[in-house]
Amino acid sequence: MRDVCVVGLGLIGGSVLRAAAAAGRAVWGATASGQDAEAARADGFDVRALADALARARDRDALVVVAVPLPAVEEVLRQVPDGVRVTDVVSVKGPVGDLVRRVAPLVRHVGGHPMAGTSASGWAAGRADLFRNAAWVVTAEEDTDLDVLTDVVELALDAKAHVVPTTAVEHDAAVARISHLPHILAAVLASVGADGGPLALALAAGSFGDGTRVAASRPELVRAMCEGNRTALLGAVDDALGRLGAARGSLASTGGLAKTIEAGHRARQALHDLQSAERTDLTIDLTSPQALEALRALGARGGRIIGLTGNTALARTS
Amino acid sequence: MRDVCVVGLGLIGGSVLRAAAAAGRAVWGATASGQDAEAARADGFDVRALADALARARDRDALVVVAVPLPAVEEVLRQVPDGVRVTDVVSVKGPVGDLVRRVAPLVRHVGGHPMAGTSASGWAAGRADLFRNAAWVVTAEEDTDLDVLTDVVELALDAKAHVVPTTAVEHDAAVARISHLPHILAAVLASVGADGGPLALALAAGSFGDGTRVAASRPELVRAMCEGNRTALLGAVDDALGRLGAARGSLASTGGLAKTIEAGHRARQALHDLQSAERTDLTIDLTSPQALEALRALGARGGRIIGLTGNTALARTS
Repeated sequence: MRDVCVVGLGLIGGSVLRAAAAAGRAVWGATASGQDAEAARADGFDVRALADALARARDRDALVVVAVPLPAVEEVLRQVPDGVRVTDVVSVKGPVGDLVRRVAPLVRHVGGHPMAGTSASGWAAGRADLFRNAAWVVTAEEDTDLDVLTDVVELALDAKAHVVPTTAVEHDAAVARISHLPHILAAVLASVGADGGPLALALAAGSFGDGTRVAASRPELVRAMCEGNRTALLGAVDDALGRLGAARGSLASTGGLAKTIEAGHRARQALHDLQSAERTDLTIDLTSPQALEALRALGARGGRIIGLTGNTALARTS
Repeated sequence: MRDVCVVGLGLIGGSVLRAAAAAGRAVWGATASGQDAEAARADGFDVRALADALARARDRDALVVVAVPLPAVEEVLRQVPDGVRVTDVVSVKGPVGDLVRRVAPLVRHVGGHPMAGTSASGWAAGRADLFRNAAWVVTAEEDTDLDVLTDVVELALDAKAHVVPTTAVEHDAAVARISHLPHILAAVLASVGADGGPLALALAAGSFGDGTRVAASRPELVRAMCEGNRTALLGAVDDALGRLGAARGSLASTGGLAKTIEAGHRARQALHDLQSAERTDLTIDLTSPQALEALRALGARGGRIIGLTGNTALARTS
């Protein structure tokens, strides 16, 4: 098992460090937060200065996990020695890939995104099982280093997550639709409801409560997440504007909403079907020249890696 | 206690009949559904032909509860004898008020809307406690008959609901925002997510699940509800389009979403505050010339009637 060095010991980084340690790996970390460093050391973890932590990663051929917020990624990347294995857990993948190509083209980077989190933050909020049953996206581009990709798959499986392989572009487009747009629509719905005054809020029940739940999230976190995925999110918002505008036009002209409501019902059914479908297992040889293509095809079909034996990934698809 | 005659013995009407009976009232009903009639009779209820049920209501000065779908309301209203006390439980109030003025101007009608329901329908799905802790809207217009309004309040309280007084126009505008728009946005979000293909749906988690939950409702019920409130719903959709368009513009031009996200967070907080606020109790004399104005003011502040002693309503507001 490869050693793991985690840079950034907040909720996600702290949970990765704990999960890797729980799986029996040698682990150490670094963080710019004195509070997180102190708390992690108090819990018995090895926390070092960044340069020291990265030098040790180079010496031991460890996997470095960059778990700092997007604005801090560039500064960390600049300090990673060439040739070191690196992944990250930032919630957008295109901007991180761009940064790697620009400031650290010689590190062996594979993007990642464990799709778990809570509204809490900091080392104290983390836990070893944060990623249990979560999707952990791994980017598989044309030129991805399969050896490092295999490292990331192994780490994700150690954390009890399943792995969804895709490209950075596809990832960012998908999360814009299913993670970032929901926050914007929840904010819009909450505001339109509040515009109706206390009477409207007093009559609000299940549908309004469900539709606005994520508007209770911390605004600065929501903004950072959405604004960091600007390009892909614009596409998703335009799709929503087009569909909402069509509903408006149909309601105004014919009084009917059949197309909107029925399409929404079919789409929700598709989500249900995907989650409850019979599964087909397959294997992917991660040393094969076709491996990256097979991985991307797996992700595109809604499939995932659920196990690893040597260099053979056990995958499941509906 | 006034006798109650319920016309339409589906989920809502059947539950009103049971709740009124459970409160010790004399009750009887009528329904165009042979299946519902048979089931209600098998449960020991008095189900009659419509003309017979309405004649008995006139003779005993009972309260008639019209609990048929909106398209069937006109036909029922035409058969109600002049002077009879009538309420209804249709989910839009403006169109029902218009119908009463047009086809039954001499019945003593006060609109109502018990805000409870499930995805099930028919007599068998009903139950006496369906309205427990639910809001039951009662319309208090300039010319509302306070005597009949008091009857409806008494029935709603018997059913363990609390009463929210407002006008038909205000009711329809409020439910457009907090009940009908959520269904349209859920449909739009589900469709945009499904547009992202299996990958997007495979990555969908909490925010997408919450935001699309009501898209699983039966499309024909959602359509009937939304399309029946066309005028008010257009206003709510336009508000949402304006806010979503502003978010789009801001994201495209400056990359920022502060205004959208922060307004949504404040609005969701307002919902929480209203639901958890300290309450102030007050009383409203339902025989006073200012009663209708006081009732409307109560509803506008997010308040509700929680009890009735003689003609004095006990109200609660935040």
